[in-house]
Amino acid sequence: MSATKEEIVAFMALEFPQTKCIVETVDETGATLSHDIGINELRPGGTVSGPVLMSIADVAIYVAILGKIGIVPLTVTTSLTINFLRKPSAEARIMADCILMKVGRRLIVGEVSLYSEGSSDVVAHVVGTYSVPPKQT
Amino acid sequence: MSATKEEIVAFMALEFPQTKCIVETVDETGATLSHDIGINELRPGGTVSGPVLMSIADVAIYVAILGKIGIVPLTVTTSLTINFLRKPSAEARIMADCILMKVGRRLIVGEVSLYSEGSSDVVAHVVGTYSVPPKQT
Amino acid sequence: MSATKEEIVAFMALEFPQTKCIVETVDETGATLSHDIGINELRPGGTVSGPVLMSIADVAIYVAILGKIGIVPLTVTTSLTINFLRKPSAEARIMADCILMKVGRRLIVGEVSLYSEGSSDVVAHVVGTYSVPPKQT
Amino acid sequence: MSATKEEIVAFMALEFPQTKCIVETVDETGATLSHDIGINELRPGGTVSGPVLMSIADVAIYVAILGKIGIVPLTVTTSLTINFLRKPSAEARIMADCILMKVGRRLIVGEVSLYSEGSSDVVAHVVGTYSVPPKQT
Repeated sequence: MSATKEEIVAFMALEFPQTKCIVETVDETGATLSHDIGINELRPGGTVSGPVLMSIADVAIYVAILGKIGIVPLTVTTSLTINFLRKPSAEARIMADCILMKVGRRLIVGEVSLYSEGSSDVVAHVVGTYSVPPKQT
Repeated sequence: MSATKEEIVAFMALEFPQTKCIVETVDETGATLSHDIGINELRPGGTVSGPVLMSIADVAIYVAILGKIGIVPLTVTTSLTINFLRKPSAEARIMADCILMKVGRRLIVGEVSLYSEGSSDVVAHVVGTYSVPPKQT
Repeated sequence: MSATKEEIVAFMALEFPQTKCIVETVDETGATLSHDIGINELRPGGTVSGPVLMSIADVAIYVAILGKIGIVPLTVTTSLTINFLRKPSAEARIMADCILMKVGRRLIVGEVSLYSEGSSDVVAHVVGTYSVPPKQT
Repeated sequence: MSATKEEIVAFMALEFPQTKCIVETVDETGATLSHDIGINELRPGGTVSGPVLMSIADVAIYVAILGKIGIVPLTVTTSLTINFLRKPSAEARIMADCILMKVGRRLIVGEVSLYSEGSSDVVAHVVGTYSVPPKQT
């Protein structure tokens, strides 16, 4: 039932055409994404903007869900909590590691650790809940 | 100590140059912002993307804080929780009403109700916490 | 489909026998509960303990859901976020005002403002999400 | 600056006299607590009550903070988000593993995984933020 990385990348290009996230790895337990950081992602002072981090985490959980349950287009975010922990580097890609903590029939909960590439310090931590549409029969 | 709408708009143009949020009103108790919705804010199927809603809410709390405590550039988001409640209209502006629930010396907590202009149904609800830098003396 | 205050009080006595919450009012839009504060609810220094506040909020949302959709025993909390805003009084009852922000077929989201009786200052703010079991047919 | 397990247990007996949590281990990176489950912790149907889980997580983060920064009595919870993932066993102790994700001068963020003893499935996941009082000089 799960989807391959290639299927997911193709689907994301249709479903989230604006995202600049790159799917690095995805399997049934989670996903790792990367996102380049440039002038559009920075705030004055050299901090990666909070909404950019939220956006990457949201996509990471979505990709991990596809990797687990297959291409289910109507999956939607129902809630998301982000804690900003440290200032990310302005000069490194943001990496997002997502682990699915619960995969229920109706709700899926994923956790994301965001960090600057080359560092192991978590810059932001996200927990998101997604609602999966009932199966058609 | 508070800042006027004009001061805030000028500051936001420097601090958040990417944002397309428009400050409609701001005073010591809160702020109302609007954000146009176009192709860049939509996902296939006509839903306003979740990160766009998070971003508007984040800016709304930031503006409300400036309206309360004045231009304090180093204020940063420490956490944000969003609950997505209904599908927003693809054809109306998103409006964000922010109320500050707590204004402490170190932490400020704001609540935002997001809705499509012309409707009173809340499409997403946000609570965000911001850390205020210690006063210089 | 909704339940009356009397039906809810009787049901709560069975379902949550440990709670000391008192249902003050409940209708289709929300509920107000109260909870006495005594030695068991206080921490040294005279603060109402955080878990007591969380517990009251959890019950308040549960009661409001029963008031809206009727006695549905398998409704369960899926997530809860609390922000502690001010120190509650050690000598006043805690009041909890719950409003349901979303009543979906599968998920219900409620918001609770907690305050010390006699004051309008919110001491803690809660958003909770509850999963409603699918209807039997 | 950190406190030993013995110092923490003695302090908790004074500060949180109501808690039935047992400190299993604590060091500078985190803490593990256990809590017996009996009739007082259960709801009809055999589920451990949500507020009991929240309470254990809150204490676990508090203990981990003491293990890291020493006995600092005025540390207070500022926010807590819990996601309920699975039904805990009614017949096993609840275990709480806390890791501190951020230890700042003003804010500390901890993450707790709660599970039934003897199982590795996480039944609930908590992120909590605590405010540390400024240092006296």
